[in-house]
Amino acid sequence: MEHPDERFERGLKALQHISGETDPTVVSSLADIAPDLGRYIAEFAYGDVYSGPALEPRDRQLVTLGALAALGNAAPQLRFHINGALNAGCTRAEIVEALTQIAVYAGFPAAINAIGHARAVFDERDAEA
Amino acid sequence: MEHPDERFERGLKALQHISGETDPTVVSSLADIAPDLGRYIAEFAYGDVYSGPALEPRDRQLVTLGALAALGNAAPQLRFHINGALNAGCTRAEIVEALTQIAVYAGFPAAINAIGHARAVFDERDAEA
Amino acid sequence: MEHPDERFERGLKALQHISGETDPTVVSSLADIAPDLGRYIAEFAYGDVYSGPALEPRDRQLVTLGALAALGNAAPQLRFHINGALNAGCTRAEIVEALTQIAVYAGFPAAINAIGHARAVFDERDAEA
Amino acid sequence: MEHPDERFERGLKALQHISGETDPTVVSSLADIAPDLGRYIAEFAYGDVYSGPALEPRDRQLVTLGALAALGNAAPQLRFHINGALNAGCTRAEIVEALTQIAVYAGFPAAINAIGHARAVFDERDAEA
Amino acid sequence: MEHPDERFERGLKALQHISGETDPTVVSSLADIAPDLGRYIAEFAYGDVYSGPALEPRDRQLVTLGALAALGNAAPQLRFHINGALNAGCTRAEIVEALTQIAVYAGFPAAINAIGHARAVFDERDAEA
Amino acid sequence: MEHPDERFERGLKALQHISGETDPTVVSSLADIAPDLGRYIAEFAYGDVYSGPALEPRDRQLVTLGALAALGNAAPQLRFHINGALNAGCTRAEIVEALTQIAVYAGFPAAINAIGHARAVFDERDAEA
Repeated sequence: MEHPDERFERGLKALQHISGETDPTVVSSLADIAPDLGRYIAEFAYGDVYSGPALEPRDRQLVTLGALAALGNAAPQLRFHINGALNAGCTRAEIVEALTQIAVYAGFPAAINAIGHARAVFDERDAEA
Repeated sequence: MEHPDERFERGLKALQHISGETDPTVVSSLADIAPDLGRYIAEFAYGDVYSGPALEPRDRQLVTLGALAALGNAAPQLRFHINGALNAGCTRAEIVEALTQIAVYAGFPAAINAIGHARAVFDERDAEA
Repeated sequence: MEHPDERFERGLKALQHISGETDPTVVSSLADIAPDLGRYIAEFAYGDVYSGPALEPRDRQLVTLGALAALGNAAPQLRFHINGALNAGCTRAEIVEALTQIAVYAGFPAAINAIGHARAVFDERDAEA
Repeated sequence: MEHPDERFERGLKALQHISGETDPTVVSSLADIAPDLGRYIAEFAYGDVYSGPALEPRDRQLVTLGALAALGNAAPQLRFHINGALNAGCTRAEIVEALTQIAVYAGFPAAINAIGHARAVFDERDAEA
Repeated sequence: MEHPDERFERGLKALQHISGETDPTVVSSLADIAPDLGRYIAEFAYGDVYSGPALEPRDRQLVTLGALAALGNAAPQLRFHINGALNAGCTRAEIVEALTQIAVYAGFPAAINAIGHARAVFDERDAEA
Repeated sequence: MEHPDERFERGLKALQHISGETDPTVVSSLADIAPDLGRYIAEFAYGDVYSGPALEPRDRQLVTLGALAALGNAAPQLRFHINGALNAGCTRAEIVEALTQIAVYAGFPAAINAIGHARAVFDERDAEA
């Protein structure tokens, strides 16, 4: 039976892998105003769901890109997961194709705007390189 | 330079692979009322987008499951692509996990309702087997 | 300065024109459970907004078909306005084309499901004729 | 430091309070196909979030009614929480007014369809009484 | 039988209470381009719906926070109603908890982005104090 | 049987008509990162759908304004089509009324935010004149 803190630690580690950040911003930036929400992200979203063995990390990112691009109302999170998809082994061409495909299921505006976020992430990584 | 009909034929073939249907219903069922829409599905959605080499069929299904489960307003299409994901090589456990993960990005109701559609597809396949 | 009841009467008349119903169901069906909501529909939605001179009735139906088909979560209202669009002078071919066009802006599932509602409305009118 | 099972038990108890069910269907109905999702609902959604002291149960139901009625794509969950709002002390008149108010923020179709679900829940409770 | 102008005046007064503004911006900022829309907001949304006795002002804000946070595409209005909820008697901790709970029904991105708007409103009020 | 390039050329011409741009930005701005998406917009969205004879250009813009204003998550595209509606013969008053009407079907926030985009487009045209 695991200790609650193990969920938090496991989630932080998953977030570090996905984001490449040592101190994942999504958790730390909520610490002052909504610490429970930050804790749930680490414990539940990444410590429970993402850390499960039933789906490969790269597959998880593809599902999430589909969800966030289709919803079209969560820009920071879409950028986070475009970056995460690259870190999980997707190529830029695969991400562009995945977001292009969104045009079929959620319309061209959703696809075009998602591609704009991909461009921003790619540019930022190029600038850092 | 390809002949327009090649796009339609290529799309029909892609739809046959995904759906396992000889005469894909999504196209034939629109023939009497909205033939252009049926033709666009074959030519554009499947003849152009889905037939491109930039993403594997299984990856495409994961992106689409994410999009449709998150939108939560397209039940027949979500069932079509749960079936398509199985035909593209996803296991039932992977599909269940992908839809469970939607709880993180679009809320528990979206995930629960998507799982209900997965159950219906799995049951139908079991009944046919 | 108009009497409040004039707004209700003007809205009922607009609803009668759009729906072809003598006693518009959308108002009467709310009378027992949410009479204020029913009254607001007559007074505000149809007595104020729809009765304004700034847009032709046929134009209003096209805007509404676009909105409801794109949202994809309001089937009874979409059917009401497909019927309303016919009553305002749209042809069946125009409605089918308008809903087909939704594929571009909200994706193919939204368009396909909207066409299904158009089919139901057309069939019902054929059965009544 | 609490034992993980305490989260599950606390969540089940919260679900029993909200739903009036001894064996909450939302968890048990997922046991065969997506047991992790069912467990997350008990542990996280109800054991963590709903059980927190920062908001009264009645307030939580009002927030949830607003969210589900506005989204308009989660009928079973909206019915669950209309029932839950009654169990948490809302009157029928308050629920009808809360759903009517959704017309302002998410449009009349969302409000009208939510009222339809309220009617179904009220009727079912009357039939059981 | 009330005079139409009474609805406008009653709505303005409700808007003043909610927003703390003497000349509610949401109405005045529409005066040059869409005066009817501004008038409808005062007359209908606040003069009719919000001014009704069937639900307490604080309850109304909770429903609206739930709706706007879940939709996730109406940032200015969400900030307006976070401010309105504070003016109607909600504490900051209650608002943070209400928005955290949105993670369960509309996903973590919706909750995280809503918390960002709460932070902006809280900071602005601190700066003014 | 038409040559594929004719679809692209026809789409570009339609985009030029709608936007008033010689080199439509929506296509050219995707050329470096997602050329297939840009090509699909020209070939499919405008070369196939928009160029069809079944609906007048002005009618098409009304449907699209309804869709994009209701979705509320595609600001650049809504501005593009407010401009397009003016180019297709809608008056500013008609556009304002069409977007005002969105309050009825998708709520006041969607309408208010859409009017904000109309103001931006009108101002830009005034500045250019």
